[in-house]
Amino acid sequence: MTISTPLSPTERSTPGRTKHRAVFDRAALYDVLDTGLICHLGLVLDGSPVVLPTGYGRDGDTLYLHGSTGARSLRAAADGIDVCVTVTHLDGIVYARSLNHHSMNYRSAVVHGRARPVTERAEKLHGLRMVTEHLAPGSWDHARGVNAKEYAAVSVLALPLHEASVKVRAEGPNDDAEDIEANAVWAGVLPVRQVFGTPEPATDLPVPAHVTARAAQASTGPCSGSSR
Amino acid sequence: MTISTPLSPTERSTPGRTKHRAVFDRAALYDVLDTGLICHLGLVLDGSPVVLPTGYGRDGDTLYLHGSTGARSLRAAADGIDVCVTVTHLDGIVYARSLNHHSMNYRSAVVHGRARPVTERAEKLHGLRMVTEHLAPGSWDHARGVNAKEYAAVSVLALPLHEASVKVRAEGPNDDAEDIEANAVWAGVLPVRQVFGTPEPATDLPVPAHVTARAAQASTGPCSGSSR
Repeated sequence: MTISTPLSPTERSTPGRTKHRAVFDRAALYDVLDTGLICHLGLVLDGSPVVLPTGYGRDGDTLYLHGSTGARSLRAAADGIDVCVTVTHLDGIVYARSLNHHSMNYRSAVVHGRARPVTERAEKLHGLRMVTEHLAPGSWDHARGVNAKEYAAVSVLALPLHEASVKVRAEGPNDDAEDIEANAVWAGVLPVRQVFGTPEPATDLPVPAHVTARAAQASTGPCSGSSR
Repeated sequence: MTISTPLSPTERSTPGRTKHRAVFDRAALYDVLDTGLICHLGLVLDGSPVVLPTGYGRDGDTLYLHGSTGARSLRAAADGIDVCVTVTHLDGIVYARSLNHHSMNYRSAVVHGRARPVTERAEKLHGLRMVTEHLAPGSWDHARGVNAKEYAAVSVLALPLHEASVKVRAEGPNDDAEDIEANAVWAGVLPVRQVFGTPEPATDLPVPAHVTARAAQASTGPCSGSSR
């Protein structure tokens, strides 16, 4: 992964409140996106916001989304309306001495932009590959490929990673000095992780290496195998 | 938790594509919301969609959100604009015999509505309590309470759970008959779970029971302790 140009947030992508949590480098953006599994896609339908969970994939400074050609949300996005794609990792619950300083540790990326429909065959297949390999690394070469009917039934959208912001909180509670001195209330962080379990086969075939390798992340320690 | 009136989805909250995954009962909505930790709040700012991760809490058919009085997103919502709140649990990666049928197991709730600012003191404190106890059960009675300055600096929003949809996918791959017969590709589900780790104290005080009880969920088996 290369560290290229810094993020250039505009007004809407500049965190208004907690500026000290904002991270303005492209490597941080790539990291949040690449270690996530789903994004939340926001768009405006009939004047109202709609937020839907969906898969995605990244190649360089392009984020690929896909969906059925029949999905209203993707049809709308393909018409060229603005979207907002957010990926969030919850890393911990922050217990503070005061209720006011209770918080969460997290890493989040918010991407604003206009998604364009990908119709050229080579790029569309490339986009599908990026989305598939993000969800299930190794599957593109392992599973039966996309036939003509399936190809026609899927939409692929490309969103440039031009306007984005990354926020990270990764620390203990930020209590007031008086509350720390009083030392009357426990404070600390309860870590939260996403882990893979044991594969549940639907076939009698042996579980392939690209799946066992991923599942094995969950057995490197007591729940230490994060999907990140 | 009571099962009250069924959800009454409107056009925008009726899943357009995968109708068979839609669940139309209120208990399912409560379950997805109550077992989540963060939501993705969508709103329209200057004509563009914005999706931000945030905490929340539920009491009956009211969802409470909170944030700094200075946060642009919550200020806009307090003015009475439409919001969309989505909570998603990723439960598994579905490896299918064909690329086309790769999928995810998940549970998601999408709530549409108009958030109102909560300004009456008793309800505002109740809303803060719901949000705090959702994030950190037991903290409301344990930690130092909200003082006047902190009370003034926080906004609370209430969103009615009138218009919502729940979707659930919880099954193996749905491959085509030919691909199943061919039996050439492994297929199955790789479970994904969110688990708590070991508390990381910021004080020398003993870790209180309301935190140890939650952390203990992670040690009931090899990564079997879900935060759900």
